[in-house]
Amino acid sequence: MEVDHLYHLGLTKQGDNLEKDFGDVRFICTGGAAHRMYTYALMMKEELRIDGDLIDLSADGHRFSMYKVGPVIFINHGMGVPSLSILLHELFKLVAYAKCKDVVFFRLGTCGGLGKAPGTVIVSKRCVDNQCRSTFRIVKLGKEINMEATLDQELANNLINYASANHPDIPIEPGCTMTTDDFYEGQARCDGAFCDFTREQASIYLNEIAAKGVTNIEMEATCFAAMCTKARVKCAIVNVILVDRLEGDQVRVDKETYNNFQVRPFTIISNYIKSIINS
Amino acid sequence: MEVDHLYHLGLTKQGDNLEKDFGDVRFICTGGAAHRMYTYALMMKEELRIDGDLIDLSADGHRFSMYKVGPVIFINHGMGVPSLSILLHELFKLVAYAKCKDVVFFRLGTCGGLGKAPGTVIVSKRCVDNQCRSTFRIVKLGKEINMEATLDQELANNLINYASANHPDIPIEPGCTMTTDDFYEGQARCDGAFCDFTREQASIYLNEIAAKGVTNIEMEATCFAAMCTKARVKCAIVNVILVDRLEGDQVRVDKETYNNFQVRPFTIISNYIKSIINS
Repeated sequence: MEVDHLYHLGLTKQGDNLEKDFGDVRFICTGGAAHRMYTYALMMKEELRIDGDLIDLSADGHRFSMYKVGPVIFINHGMGVPSLSILLHELFKLVAYAKCKDVVFFRLGTCGGLGKAPGTVIVSKRCVDNQCRSTFRIVKLGKEINMEATLDQELANNLINYASANHPDIPIEPGCTMTTDDFYEGQARCDGAFCDFTREQASIYLNEIAAKGVTNIEMEATCFAAMCTKARVKCAIVNVILVDRLEGDQVRVDKETYNNFQVRPFTIISNYIKSIINS
Repeated sequence: MEVDHLYHLGLTKQGDNLEKDFGDVRFICTGGAAHRMYTYALMMKEELRIDGDLIDLSADGHRFSMYKVGPVIFINHGMGVPSLSILLHELFKLVAYAKCKDVVFFRLGTCGGLGKAPGTVIVSKRCVDNQCRSTFRIVKLGKEINMEATLDQELANNLINYASANHPDIPIEPGCTMTTDDFYEGQARCDGAFCDFTREQASIYLNEIAAKGVTNIEMEATCFAAMCTKARVKCAIVNVILVDRLEGDQVRVDKETYNNFQVRPFTIISNYIKSIINS
């Protein structure tokens, strides 16, 4: 397309000089909340000793918040698959128009764990949908299509090995991540506004999927894996556990612990990125 | 529950005085972008001649932006069903804990139209999913459940009659709204990062669903209708069309036209609310 408006990013192929502004991007880090991505970008600026203020480069779109720190972009994807899918379509177009080379995508998220202590970091080796299938289901022209939701095994292993060697204080494990389309009933929580099953049924279900190998539950992994695979870009998913779902529904870590936990995926990814930049 | 943390709203049943702070709420207006909800709240403050600064009441949650203007709340729901479902669970709990009475929920959104001029406002009388079923599909404990996604016919008629009588400059129609889980291929767009169908196949599909009565396409209606029905709260969905999808994929209205269009659902809902408050 000669003219292309990346509507939700608030950027235009024609009006903006995408190659000049984004051509050097090599890593894209994304996660749910805009505030967390801003915090990560601030910390990365310190780590890479880059001066200048952070500017929200997608402010015109009023949907996402995007910050660029040297060769690294931080941008929030909102909550859930539909919001993420919009972001990925427009980011893939952005890196193509900007002629970026070999960009690696990371999701840095929070999640519920299954039999894992809060604070544990899970690097996804596999992901499954809410019915334990290793696929991402999308409806196109009224027909269901199942896309393979595979992840780069080498990159996942590299991240785990890197973190184990350099950050022994952070508990980290490979895992199988389940993606759901809802945080409450969709994740077997009984503490929503309504719930059609008992706490006992929820507990049986959560133990069943844990026995099948599911280590953690969040709301984006299958879409992230499937769309990155289709676009032929490397990607990794690194989530920190905020609550052990075999123990309860509510996230009840205090602010200090929360801040300590949520920085863990960043610590691993940012140092891994630095090791590549400096190699 | 004695202790309940409305995690994504950043409010707690215990720590906050929800009855004092929210007990007078009668109307909740929600839509995708935080920026648009803030603009609406500012305008409502003018309309109701209420003093004081707007404060984001869900700032602690870092997920949504919530503003209260007298008996009216404005809060964004992000993009897509999963994000909306989280918001509705926590809002339903909030209004229950605050002992609000007969709260009415409105979605004020933007959408693509089918054979309708940009700027047309559609009040949904029906909504359907991406396979033209009048239901909202959710997976609970691994099993698919279909919830009825019905809308209050009287409220929809009242809004249309009120707007037709008082805002003859705004084109408004009843409609059947389709909800999808993606903005690009999921809405038969060919302008995403990739596309597995031809423009001709997309055109045939869009004409087929238009022939079945679908007037507009967006990403939240079925969930909004189904969850409000289940919670036994009245709701209405009012979307303004930004692009006629039988004519093209891209949203290309200029900024002035966009601002003119996006205020239309607000004009109708805010004046309808005022007419009820003053009656």
